[in-house]
Amino acid sequence: MKTPYYLYDIELLKKTLSFAQNSAGKYNFNIHYAIKANHNPAITKLISQQGFGVDCVSGNEISEALKVGFKAKKIVFAGAGKSDEEIKKALQQNILCLNCESIEELEIVEEIAISLNKKAQIAIRVNPDIKAHTHHYITTGTEENKFGIHTSQLKSALDFVKNSDYLKFVGLHFHIGSQITNMDTFINLCKRVNTIWKDFNISDYNPILLNMGGGLGVDYEDAKNNTIPPFDEFFSVFAEYLKVPSNISIHFELGRSLVAQCGKLITKVLYTKKGVNKTFVITDAGMTELMRPALYQARHYIENTTSSRNPQRYDIVGPVCESSDVFGKNVLLPETRRNDLIAIHSCGAYAESMMLRYNMRQKIKSYIKNITNELLLSDNYENNKNQEYSCKELKTKETML
Amino acid sequence: MKTPYYLYDIELLKKTLSFAQNSAGKYNFNIHYAIKANHNPAITKLISQQGFGVDCVSGNEISEALKVGFKAKKIVFAGAGKSDEEIKKALQQNILCLNCESIEELEIVEEIAISLNKKAQIAIRVNPDIKAHTHHYITTGTEENKFGIHTSQLKSALDFVKNSDYLKFVGLHFHIGSQITNMDTFINLCKRVNTIWKDFNISDYNPILLNMGGGLGVDYEDAKNNTIPPFDEFFSVFAEYLKVPSNISIHFELGRSLVAQCGKLITKVLYTKKGVNKTFVITDAGMTELMRPALYQARHYIENTTSSRNPQRYDIVGPVCESSDVFGKNVLLPETRRNDLIAIHSCGAYAESMMLRYNMRQKIKSYIKNITNELLLSDNYENNKNQEYSCKELKTKETML
Repeated sequence: MKTPYYLYDIELLKKTLSFAQNSAGKYNFNIHYAIKANHNPAITKLISQQGFGVDCVSGNEISEALKVGFKAKKIVFAGAGKSDEEIKKALQQNILCLNCESIEELEIVEEIAISLNKKAQIAIRVNPDIKAHTHHYITTGTEENKFGIHTSQLKSALDFVKNSDYLKFVGLHFHIGSQITNMDTFINLCKRVNTIWKDFNISDYNPILLNMGGGLGVDYEDAKNNTIPPFDEFFSVFAEYLKVPSNISIHFELGRSLVAQCGKLITKVLYTKKGVNKTFVITDAGMTELMRPALYQARHYIENTTSSRNPQRYDIVGPVCESSDVFGKNVLLPETRRNDLIAIHSCGAYAESMMLRYNMRQKIKSYIKNITNELLLSDNYENNKNQEYSCKELKTKETML
Repeated sequence: MKTPYYLYDIELLKKTLSFAQNSAGKYNFNIHYAIKANHNPAITKLISQQGFGVDCVSGNEISEALKVGFKAKKIVFAGAGKSDEEIKKALQQNILCLNCESIEELEIVEEIAISLNKKAQIAIRVNPDIKAHTHHYITTGTEENKFGIHTSQLKSALDFVKNSDYLKFVGLHFHIGSQITNMDTFINLCKRVNTIWKDFNISDYNPILLNMGGGLGVDYEDAKNNTIPPFDEFFSVFAEYLKVPSNISIHFELGRSLVAQCGKLITKVLYTKKGVNKTFVITDAGMTELMRPALYQARHYIENTTSSRNPQRYDIVGPVCESSDVFGKNVLLPETRRNDLIAIHSCGAYAESMMLRYNMRQKIKSYIKNITNELLLSDNYENNKNQEYSCKELKTKETML
């Protein structure tokens, strides 16, 4: 099978989705899948079939979500830079709500709603000014960045919506960042939301929902064994600490935690290059297929699935002409040789969806592994023409992967 | 015209190419265009027509280079992770040479050359261990990274090539990084190369060329006025300091310095969002169309081409759901309003070629501006079917851009 490729373990995904849904279900919480994490239809169709909602951040994501079966009434649309066309599409499709990020955006949404003679459902995204203790690139809830409305402007925003005949306030939205593993951060968020809810008399604005965003992290280090995030613990925090009226429906936006661990990037060793102080394993996948290490200095668990020789230390690097194209430094692997297969774990999220074609790299394929460990070709979304989730076929017995 | 889009100033590109060619021509130096900087055919066809060679880093780049008219004998193929298929393609096309980066690679190239019954032309890429004083991601010539052969292994590599019936040594290759503006760095490189040439008796291996790589920087700050890099100064350094036999042809690989300044990313203001301590200009282009700020913390000169109002300070951010999607902080612009057009300068290199589709963002178009300031649609390489460089449709008088 031609490497590199993405490999999705559908059975693991199903287990993860069930656990998330059961954990949330205890409290009647609603989960929206953050489709930006991965829009491969093999994944999104399954998630929509399981009854999840979806969190979109572009007009194209809304179209894709509808195409793979998500109900319009379960679509939320977020983003600090929604274009007019995107807002129009969202309103025409009668989605659940737009998470609006500024008063300036509210003005434009109203203008477009008037032109369409529609009433736009609005959640106001509030910047809660909570530190998320994560990489500064994926922290979104603090004061300095482009996301959300500061509490000092929240009253104006609420009144703007209340006073408009074309806007309907549905609730508040928060999102403080991603890859958060410390539950105290979410406890702090709950407390802050309770305060805001009370201070601004949110109940007086007739809200129907509260969207707490996402952010639950996954275990990138022990990705092989720790495959399912602690959804039970996560949701229990909100059940315990959130103090809003019981008629308010609570929503979450989960991306990474639902899909990261079900995916791997499978790549072949082109060379083991002995340097002076270190040995490089040069793989045929690079930053073009997995951007996170170059962009966030992220590290993924890397496994040699071919070799069981004695362990040695390697720098694992890709073929792209760029020093940032490094998957790991000083990584312990069984002695690694040309043509060995390497599995880079936790590539179900923010890998395929961030793929680029730099160096004119070939677009790679994705496969799903089903319950019998067969590998099936997962149709890529760009070629996807409403075919069923059961995909074209291909097989192999690469059961170690 | 639908924003965002890339806009290429073909007249500026022509001037830049002429100046580079004249500056190199004084010393009979050869320039290869590093096509990874931008493979838009409107640009590559012009560069090939002007007689430049090309520097490719993938099999697809070789195919594209041939398609737009570069001669096989002017193609060099670099990269630390060449796949077997790519090496095979290079040998079948009889390109000028492969810049080989390790002894392990030499072994594979020989193996493939034997299978094709071809003699592979080899330049050995040497890591000169010179500090390039640039961003650590684009420094490639120091000891720790994946590129090149350390001098302690050079003798073995040279002898390996010499003793093979299927490899032909053509010379040495160096490349120490990019966006270098201090000429002392190149002087140091020349001195180091002279030493290596002498110490390893390179002349005894019957070389025909010496490839000094690229790295000449452009002025990202004063991009509007300082449009053409100091090629004269750059080449004169090598003419003065390089001490290799006069029968050796000297080659360079220039990407950014040839094309960066001819390109702009044109984007529209979606919102000016008044925050608490700062005001955000939210544009309809993001990191998906220009990755450099997020990936390298690079800063480009940003211009509001619509407004001449009083200057204010803004954070310029894109619409992508990611805190890294920032083009500039605390940037002075004329008072900026919704629908103003913003030009982000120096986007001729490493912008379109690094475009990604994260957030399912639409692929954007590119236009060229010709001598009469008309904007012509530049056919994107993926749709490009051997059409001529003179392009489809035209219109608009956006002469300010």
